[in-house]
Amino acid sequence: MGRATEAQVIRNRIRLGEFDGQTSGLAPGHVQSNLIVLPVDWAGEFLRFCQANPKSCPLLAVSEPGSPLLPTLGQDIDIRTDLPRYRVYRDGDLVEQPTDILSLWRDDLVAFLIGATFSCEESLLAAGISMKHITLGRNVPMYRTNIQCVPVGRFSGPMLVSMRPLRAADAIRAIQITTRFPSAHGAPVHLGRPDLIGIDSIPRPDYGQPTPVEADEMPVFWACGVTPQATLPAARPPLAIGHEPGCMLVTDLLNSRQASF
Amino acid sequence: MGRATEAQVIRNRIRLGEFDGQTSGLAPGHVQSNLIVLPVDWAGEFLRFCQANPKSCPLLAVSEPGSPLLPTLGQDIDIRTDLPRYRVYRDGDLVEQPTDILSLWRDDLVAFLIGATFSCEESLLAAGISMKHITLGRNVPMYRTNIQCVPVGRFSGPMLVSMRPLRAADAIRAIQITTRFPSAHGAPVHLGRPDLIGIDSIPRPDYGQPTPVEADEMPVFWACGVTPQATLPAARPPLAIGHEPGCMLVTDLLNSRQASF
Repeated sequence: MGRATEAQVIRNRIRLGEFDGQTSGLAPGHVQSNLIVLPVDWAGEFLRFCQANPKSCPLLAVSEPGSPLLPTLGQDIDIRTDLPRYRVYRDGDLVEQPTDILSLWRDDLVAFLIGATFSCEESLLAAGISMKHITLGRNVPMYRTNIQCVPVGRFSGPMLVSMRPLRAADAIRAIQITTRFPSAHGAPVHLGRPDLIGIDSIPRPDYGQPTPVEADEMPVFWACGVTPQATLPAARPPLAIGHEPGCMLVTDLLNSRQASF
Repeated sequence: MGRATEAQVIRNRIRLGEFDGQTSGLAPGHVQSNLIVLPVDWAGEFLRFCQANPKSCPLLAVSEPGSPLLPTLGQDIDIRTDLPRYRVYRDGDLVEQPTDILSLWRDDLVAFLIGATFSCEESLLAAGISMKHITLGRNVPMYRTNIQCVPVGRFSGPMLVSMRPLRAADAIRAIQITTRFPSAHGAPVHLGRPDLIGIDSIPRPDYGQPTPVEADEMPVFWACGVTPQATLPAARPPLAIGHEPGCMLVTDLLNSRQASF
């Protein structure tokens, strides 16, 4: 193997326990990914949920049952160690937020890797559009909405969204740019008044950290790959493991290869 | 010549004086066009103004000096008779709003035909996005903004915009759709707060008729092909002729052939 890519360097630091923070802005050029792990007897139903909700759940890869490897995303990836922080749910309840899941792994688990808007951020920056949460060194703010996912079997729940404040001209350009990346949630699902999608308070996100919206800006909302975790309280699978919102898998895939046109 | 197209039928009615209204929604499928006519010794400077301001002034065709014909837009087009209503400016002052310009035509005049967002409206309608001004049977509302055109020689002035009220999800889809039509002004230049681009009152447009914006909608603003007429008070050409805003040339070109991708 030649010189390690920036993505491999970051994954290695995470694997060694040297980094457990959020990954926005890290390893520019590389696709980042959300995670959900479910037992194999829940996998078919969840796959159909992803198919029915492609804005929230664009699938980048699915592991072989029992295998923690994801060779199509990076030869050395081990899903049990390579994300900064995880969320463990039992019967739908969040019970633990560890930095690895080595002791929890079982031979009936399947890992689903779901695209992230983080993968669009470098294209937005390259267009001169500031990402304020990166400038502030914060995690992106995420919110539950009143937009309901298409229910499939036991999986149902609200769409979660990430928010970036933009001036109108930048919002228009950001819509154009992110439209090209359907595997990273594509175009926004909403912009402007938060209450129209059931968000009461912009300063109090459900996940991540607040980003201020200035008077000449509007909040712009993209579907978010944490959405599957919001289905767990109702679905109540005996075991499910997600990533800590904002703490993604950094893959070897190149964002520049993901554009649909 | 075979059976007349709907565009030819409408142009013929206009030429015969049977129709002098606004053309939004007429002859679906056909490109519509804004007009500005200038003396040939002003033409080079105006061409450079169009080149410098492509969002406002996407040029569809330029006539031969002295010729009222536009064969690339339609074999039978006579620019002197085929628009419903004109605006005649002398030394930058509006002096007349006739329904033809036969008596004004001179062998030193050049006609510039500029794309119109009307050409996108059928694509928006086909995507299930209502065009409220069409539903209401009104002309689209147009506004002067505080966005300044790039000045070229004697030509300078504010960008004019047309406004369509849309819900956020429709606004996002409308940005995607109109991006594909740069020759029809392309994507919006602004959406949301009108005051951010110098518009004081949505109910009082500078041209056209008001369209109400509901509480769950936002105003979406596209650059408008009336913009060249706003340069005339400062430029003060001895003679200039524009169309009455909203009263366009209906061409034989097909909108479906204009999409850039």
